[in-house]
Formats: sequence, structure tokens, C-alpha cells
Amino acid sequence: MDVNIVGKGAVGEELMALMQMRKFTLDTLRIFASPGSKGQALQTPFGSITIEDLADVYPQTQNQDGITGKLLEGYTFFCAGGDTSKQYAKLASQSSIVIDNSSAFRYDSDIPLVIPEINAHAIGSSKLIANPNCTTAIASIPLYLLHNLYGLKRVSIATYQSASGAGGKGMDELLLQQEKVATNLGAGQERYTGISPQVFPHQLIDNVIPRIDVISNDGYTKEEMKVDWELHKILNLHSIVKIGCTAVRVPVLRAHSEAIDVETARPVNLDEYRSALLHASGVTLSDDIERHIYPMPLTASNKYDVFVGRIRPTHTFDNGVTFFVSGDQLWKGAALNALQIAEYIRDHKE
Amino acid sequence: MDVNIVGKGAVGEELMALMQMRKFTLDTLRIFASPGSKGQALQTPFGSITIEDLADVYPQTQNQDGITGKLLEGYTFFCAGGDTSKQYAKLASQSSIVIDNSSAFRYDSDIPLVIPEINAHAIGSSKLIANPNCTTAIASIPLYLLHNLYGLKRVSIATYQSASGAGGKGMDELLLQQEKVATNLGAGQERYTGISPQVFPHQLIDNVIPRIDVISNDGYTKEEMKVDWELHKILNLHSIVKIGCTAVRVPVLRAHSEAIDVETARPVNLDEYRSALLHASGVTLSDDIERHIYPMPLTASNKYDVFVGRIRPTHTFDNGVTFFVSGDQLWKGAALNALQIAEYIRDHKE
Repeated sequence: MDVNIVGKGAVGEELMALMQMRKFTLDTLRIFASPGSKGQALQTPFGSITIEDLADVYPQTQNQDGITGKLLEGYTFFCAGGDTSKQYAKLASQSSIVIDNSSAFRYDSDIPLVIPEINAHAIGSSKLIANPNCTTAIASIPLYLLHNLYGLKRVSIATYQSASGAGGKGMDELLLQQEKVATNLGAGQERYTGISPQVFPHQLIDNVIPRIDVISNDGYTKEEMKVDWELHKILNLHSIVKIGCTAVRVPVLRAHSEAIDVETARPVNLDEYRSALLHASGVTLSDDIERHIYPMPLTASNKYDVFVGRIRPTHTFDNGVTFFVSGDQLWKGAALNALQIAEYIRDHKE
Repeated sequence: MDVNIVGKGAVGEELMALMQMRKFTLDTLRIFASPGSKGQALQTPFGSITIEDLADVYPQTQNQDGITGKLLEGYTFFCAGGDTSKQYAKLASQSSIVIDNSSAFRYDSDIPLVIPEINAHAIGSSKLIANPNCTTAIASIPLYLLHNLYGLKRVSIATYQSASGAGGKGMDELLLQQEKVATNLGAGQERYTGISPQVFPHQLIDNVIPRIDVISNDGYTKEEMKVDWELHKILNLHSIVKIGCTAVRVPVLRAHSEAIDVETARPVNLDEYRSALLHASGVTLSDDIERHIYPMPLTASNKYDVFVGRIRPTHTFDNGVTFFVSGDQLWKGAALNALQIAEYIRDHKE
């Protein structure tokens, strides 16, 4: 199996770690990054890899001297942001199966947006598959089970998103602020002296920031709209199902959490819903509040499954359920789901 | 003016700081705490005060030798938890006006539960007034304005509650964990070595904990039910108005935040609602997402007002609004509101 990874950030790194853990057999691994990194050696679980530039495979201008790099084969994971995906993902899909982590193609009606536990069938014969937004992916399986059993009507979500959502540089910024506060303390200085946020719009330590991503329509952020658009697409929901979201960054290193309040078309039997969660792939029931067992980012980090708990009748709606989820943003929220898409195609299509 | 404070924790401390800031004129200040602290000198903004024991004012048993301490006069603030309030607050209200910070009397139909900006009139001739739960207090004014304009139907709340909600010891535990992580880093040890939570049920640094307070009915925590019960009482809401809440502790030092999604009976005019917020007491409009201006716990700390922003049409309901609030948990969420009740009585009743 040939694998190509575009981007050498946190998602690309986690993808390689997961390929090793899940014994995703590789013949060759190629890594592509920005022209400035070309030729550098990157240490990976699969040995040292020399970074390539996609512009050598796909000429950027008519004047450029044709293809100099070897065409991509096997599976290509785009983990480098929307602009890179827009430029190269369709080209790469002519000779390899492309799984795109960006939002570039998620809303195109002819590109499948896939959570394998839910809609693997949507892959069909597509060579370009979009991987959902992290917040969407983490909420999707518990909502899918609920929809199958009782029909979704309204979903109100508030998120608790970790620094890892902004990649390695987001995690680094939180770590740096934690270190700075400790240094200030030791030096007898004011707690926040010298903290100057670069990645997040405000200081994250001791704070929460209720804006993630750019502004979209209606006063909503794009992060909030992604949850609405993508859940509709993945769960194939009728447009009358209404989904509202408030996306908030919290000072947590990795793993996102979400408080989810749902109105269903039919009354929810909580035991039946718990049982569905218990037997479903991709989720772990973590629901014993008396014994202080509930989903938390700390326990959901570096886990394949999304944790679901605090399951109780909604007090907002006549029918429905309120619950809490935590899932690893870099895994089910990104690299793991992307790899699961590739595994599904490997096992079912080849 | 005579003032008595029962409890020498974070709320009592903030109360004294606020009395000084707001020039709440004192003739005498008495401080009561547990028997073990009796006779100790406490440094306050009003000089050194010798701590007294309420058991010396109110004999605890028939056999005890009657009253030895001077009766309470003026205003008494109970800031020491529900058990102390249950034991002494009604006795204290025979000779002083009692403002109780605990939940001991909040749900008694004959005890007013008051946010002065909303229902000061409910004080009437009562000598015992209950101060609302912090999460309720912080949400109350924006919801009150909305109710007056458009009528509340359904309210779905997810909270981001700071360590200060567990008092000084909660803040200390978060600070200790931040220090521990830094020390571990310096010593080359694993990040969380030696962290052992005492106040919160789990580690709070790099985590969120979706359980606050004991379990109530239905799988809800008491913290979540307080918001429902208390908003109904303060806003005098019909029981058909439905309020659901998920209460979550986040690694923030002080100031609580809440994502609030509301269905209203009539369509919301957002400009009209913003204008109402702009002109109301107790709230500051902080609503310019393009310029990264929105409520945050860091900017709401040590502020009298609750900050309201991220105001936009709800995507969950047909009519309504979604918004975000941050307010100082120790101030409007506790000591400030208690003091404002006393100020109101001083200015209107005497």
C-alpha cells in the first residue's frame, strides 16, 4: 500500500502514529509539505522520509516544465488546510484515493462526507472523500443513533474545544502560557505578564474564548455553521431538522467536549438509547454520575472512541435527551476518522 | 450601619472588599466563623476584627447558659454554607436583616429570592432574603430583558464555571495544579505526576468536569436544577416555560460563562434586544465578533456587570436568540448581588 501525506502538522503526525498502532500496512510513504521544507528529512514511525513538494508532481503554471515528481498512488491524506486541498486534491484523486481533512469539498454535493460508522455507503466509487470537521465528527455517532431510534427535530450544542483544534501551534501556545504563568509566579511578577497570544485571538489560560474560525452568516462562526451543515449531510437530515451551535475554546490541551440538548420526534427510552450506545462502534458509554463517571477531555485523549454520558431527559423539550460527549479532536475528530475511511475502502473496495 | 458577616471564605472576603469599594458605610463590623476560629484576629479592609462564634449569641441547646454574645443588628450576610444558614439565619433575622448566600431558603415560597435589577419589589417587609445561585444570577438579567420583550418559552443553557465556584479552596486547587505541572516540566517528569484532586472530583487543569454539586432528580445535578428553579422564581415564570441546563466546571480561576439558546413566544428584534441590554443596569453589551469583542471570564473578572455578547438568531428554534454571557462568580454571582440587596433596603426601606 502506498500512502501519501500532505502536511506535516499535528494531524499528519497523529495519522502516522495511528497507522502504526492500527497496523495499516505500508509499502511506501511519501510526505509533502511547503516548498521551504522540500528535501528535509522527517523522522517518522516508518523511518526517515525526505519531504517532497506537490508542485513537482503537479506543475503550477503552463510554463512549468511538466511533471518531474512521481504521480501519487494508493491513498493520499490532505492535512494541510483548505487552500492546499483546493489546489491539489482533485489532481491527486486522478491517480490515488484522496481523503481530505480540510473543509474545501465538504459541502460539494458530489463529494461524500463520511463517518464510516454512519455512512460508509456514501463513498460509492468516489476517489475524493471529505473528512468532517472535528466538532461534527465527535457529535455524530450519538446523534446518529438517536436519529435512527427517535428522529431528530432540534439540536442545541455548546462546545468545549481544546487547543489542539488549532493544531500543534495551538497546543504549544497553551503550554507556553502555562509555563509563563509559573515563571511569573516564581519571579514574583503579575500572573499574566508577558503573555502575548499569537494563535488564539485572546489569552487562553484561565479563560474561554467564544469564537472559533472566521465569521460566517447571521453572526455565527464558520465552526458553528460547519456543525449544522455537516451533520445534515452525514446523517442525511431533512432541512426541517434545526441545529444550533455555540463553539467555545477552553484551556484544554486535546479532546473536545460538547453539551448536547436534543428534541426528538418520538419519546426517548433512555435505557434503549444507552443500550444502543453500548453496542455501537466508535462510542463508549461513560454514564454513571453517582460514581463520577462521565466524559472528560482528559480521559478521552488518545482514545479511539468518543465518550458519551450525562444522559438524562431533556428539560428544554417535551421529547428528547440531554447528554455530554468528549472525543479526541486529533483522532476521531481528524486523523483517526480519515484513516478509518481508508481502511474501509481497503477492506471493501479493493 | 452595623454589618455582620458569617463565614470567612472567598465570598465573605469579596463582600468586605466590595463594601469598601462601594462606600457602604459601616459603624461596626462583626465576623462569625466556626468555633475553632473564635478569638482569632482577622485583618479586613475595616481593620482587625476578632472572630466570634454564633453559638455564643444563639445557644445551641436548652442546657446552654443563654445568650452571652451581643444580638446581631443591622445587616447580616450568611456566607458559610447551607447548614449554618439553616441553623442561624432565621434567628438572626429576628434582630437584623439577613441576606443568605446559601440555597437553604431559596425555594421557600415565603422567602424572597432577589436580583435587585429584576425583582427588588419582592423584598417587601421580609427580614430574610435569599441570594441566588451564581449561575442563575449571571444569566438572570439578559433573560429578564428577553422575557419582558418577547416572552420566554424554552431556555437551553450550557455553563463554563470557574474554580471560584468552589470558593477559595477551589481556586487554590487549580493554582496548585498549574504550579505542579510547571514543576514537573522543570524536573523532566510526566506532566500530571503528583496531582491529586481534593476539592474537585477530578483533575481540573487541562480538563473540564461535567458535574457540579450533588445529584438531584432525573440525572440532573443540583447546580443544574437550581438554575431552573431559581430563574422561575426570580422572573416569576409560568411553569410551562422550560429551562434545561448542563453545568460544567472549566479550568478558569474566576468568572462563570454560559452559552444560552432561547425560544421566545414572539419574534426577537436583535437591535431592540441589544438596545435593551445597552440601557439596562447590571449588564454590559460586549458584542462585536468581527473585532473579537465578546464576553470572556478573563475580562469579566472583578467587574460589577455581567457581559453579554455573541447575540444572534437562534438556529435551534423558530423564534428566539442565542447568546453568551460571562460574569464574576464571586461578585454578581455572590457577594455583589448580596450587597446590592442590602443597599436597596438601606436606600428604600429605611
